[in-house]
Amino acid sequence: MTQLQRLTIAPNQLADCQISLSKPQQHYLYRVLRLRAGDQLIAMDGQSCWLAELQADPGIALLLEQRLTNTELPIAITLLIAMPKTGLEDLVRQATEIGVRRIVPVLSQRSLLNPSLQKQARWLKIAQEAAEQSERQFIPEILPPQPWTDALAAAPQPAYLCEARGQHPHLLRLLTPPFPPQLSLAIGPEGGWTEAEIAQAAAAGYQPVSLGARVLRAVTAPLVALALVAAAVEAT
Amino acid sequence: MTQLQRLTIAPNQLADCQISLSKPQQHYLYRVLRLRAGDQLIAMDGQSCWLAELQADPGIALLLEQRLTNTELPIAITLLIAMPKTGLEDLVRQATEIGVRRIVPVLSQRSLLNPSLQKQARWLKIAQEAAEQSERQFIPEILPPQPWTDALAAAPQPAYLCEARGQHPHLLRLLTPPFPPQLSLAIGPEGGWTEAEIAQAAAAGYQPVSLGARVLRAVTAPLVALALVAAAVEAT
Repeated sequence: MTQLQRLTIAPNQLADCQISLSKPQQHYLYRVLRLRAGDQLIAMDGQSCWLAELQADPGIALLLEQRLTNTELPIAITLLIAMPKTGLEDLVRQATEIGVRRIVPVLSQRSLLNPSLQKQARWLKIAQEAAEQSERQFIPEILPPQPWTDALAAAPQPAYLCEARGQHPHLLRLLTPPFPPQLSLAIGPEGGWTEAEIAQAAAAGYQPVSLGARVLRAVTAPLVALALVAAAVEAT
Repeated sequence: MTQLQRLTIAPNQLADCQISLSKPQQHYLYRVLRLRAGDQLIAMDGQSCWLAELQADPGIALLLEQRLTNTELPIAITLLIAMPKTGLEDLVRQATEIGVRRIVPVLSQRSLLNPSLQKQARWLKIAQEAAEQSERQFIPEILPPQPWTDALAAAPQPAYLCEARGQHPHLLRLLTPPFPPQLSLAIGPEGGWTEAEIAQAAAAGYQPVSLGARVLRAVTAPLVALALVAAAVEAT
């Protein structure tokens, strides 16, 4: 099946039923992709999608129709992740495909790495690419890394703390309709949360949950948790 | 929590309540990990686990007890995957963590890459490492790459064909108790299965299923499908 090219635009590029294409976008569309006047593409501004057509003026694409196909989950999932040592780029890409709405990197006691601004910009770029490839309407937000207590206080409830060890109910068992409009999932670092961090989460109303009997790495557990929430709301 | 070191052994290294350690294992345990006589470890032969203790003779570890903790899924999942261009190593590692029992790389029409024997040996090594790290009792089998029709015929039923497009029931909706002792999941290549391949799967009794509204990459879809089966059987 031929897929139309998808292009991310800023909301202020839209006016009078047309898109003003930036110079880098023109270069990408006409030089890299070799598109021409008359070719169509899908433009996304993070909220909506349009079918658009390139014009003789390379600075312009005409909006043809708004696309109503909704591939977004009806639940906004916030993912709190203790920064893994490696693999965060793949995690951002795959979490975006599965349907995450917001990623909050957490500076936990066992993962104090504070990533550079360049790294954070790179994550945003990966989320944008992955949103296009997976045909989403939203590009997930990626917040700046923040301390655990700040992240706990800001994340929407209900909220679940995924723990590799301990006797907790399985996350899937707790996901029953009616579903809330939003929820949060917190996934620990390689070494697990510290006792203090678990206590802080409990005080903030987080429900500890299991993701199964096997020990998942810090880059795998978030994908499993997201997949379960996405499937629970889409399969019912 | 301190974790005991896990060591994979061959069944023929076990006799008379002790393990005969190979020279590379001795090097790894005594030189790399700096263990000493009296230190304990977990030995796994792919079927069972034992607590064992290093002895004054570096070629020997004494079996102390069989570990009965079972972290294995009560369902044996066979994963048929069209060879992705890249990312198969991560996929083997993560599928092992989530609990796959057997991986069958498939030579589909849109992914004809035939991997080298070195690559296949590397996958086995990754599966072994991941089984140790995720505290499993089984090391997943990884079969040699095979044509689609052979793979279809050999895989246990019930079997599900995951398709990114089309109106199919969600996999999670079909996963209801009582669960069979085994099942198969087939995941397509980047470009999707061809019409012919879909028809062959239908003829072999495969049920087409959806994994949700977003388009998942060939390395992400298997993790989502596995996570759903694992959670369905462990959460009920």
